[in-house]
Amino acid sequence: MLIFSTKMNFMKKTCHALLLLLTFCFAGLQTALSQTGKEIDQVRKALQIQQDAWNRGDINAFMETYWKSENLQFLGSNGPTYGWENTLERYKKRYPDRAAMGQLEFEIMNIDVRSKKVISLIGKYTLKRENDEPSGYFLLLWKKIKGKWLIVADHTS
Amino acid sequence: MLIFSTKMNFMKKTCHALLLLLTFCFAGLQTALSQTGKEIDQVRKALQIQQDAWNRGDINAFMETYWKSENLQFLGSNGPTYGWENTLERYKKRYPDRAAMGQLEFEIMNIDVRSKKVISLIGKYTLKRENDEPSGYFLLLWKKIKGKWLIVADHTS
Repeated sequence: MLIFSTKMNFMKKTCHALLLLLTFCFAGLQTALSQTGKEIDQVRKALQIQQDAWNRGDINAFMETYWKSENLQFLGSNGPTYGWENTLERYKKRYPDRAAMGQLEFEIMNIDVRSKKVISLIGKYTLKRENDEPSGYFLLLWKKIKGKWLIVADHTS
Repeated sequence: MLIFSTKMNFMKKTCHALLLLLTFCFAGLQTALSQTGKEIDQVRKALQIQQDAWNRGDINAFMETYWKSENLQFLGSNGPTYGWENTLERYKKRYPDRAAMGQLEFEIMNIDVRSKKVISLIGKYTLKRENDEPSGYFLLLWKKIKGKWLIVADHTS
């Protein structure tokens, strides 16, 4: 009877230990998931801020979401533009006034955390203008630089 | 004189220690750089293998460079295709025979290591066919999965 009771105690303790371990694992997983969720939210917000800036006609503020570096990569259907300054110039040339800028709408289709500091995003843009409504798709590569999510590569077509 | 000599000895030792530290740092940096170079070489080779497969008319082998997952993202100018199987189907529909496949040439413009297991690549493709020569640009996102670099997202326009 004593042996049986000792065995029961051992099993109980083992079960408790396993339960505790499981709880820790679950808590860890939850923390990791909520962290991932937070990062995704930050990227979502950054894109919303970018859209709002465009719709105020403020291309400079729109550009704040891009990595301010000569290594920024912007790939359009006519080829690549390198660097933040050149990308800004490209936008200003293509959209010289509010009429050309129109009303921008982003539709986010996928956001994927690729590593701790890298996120990719697939989306669609639509530009509502008086005479036309151009639209297209984009793949954005985001990097967390100095605590801020920034677009480091953009292919819009 | 004794104090001076002790001081000199101390300085000598400090210099030696600093030199040693510097050597270690330099060696570490070199290792990291050669590691980065190795990863980039692997991606370069994977793209070469993909091009060769296409030019043999072997779309199945061409597809081996893509992540065999339903989460593979292929973004064309008409929108996204999700999953390896669907991407294969898309290629087979668009390029039903050797004449349609033509001769593919990739030009790599940029390869960037974004994190330990994430690389982005910007390039241009040209398809030499009897009656036309379509071309375009692409941004590829590569991930090292089970020791192998695979395309997880592709935007070709």
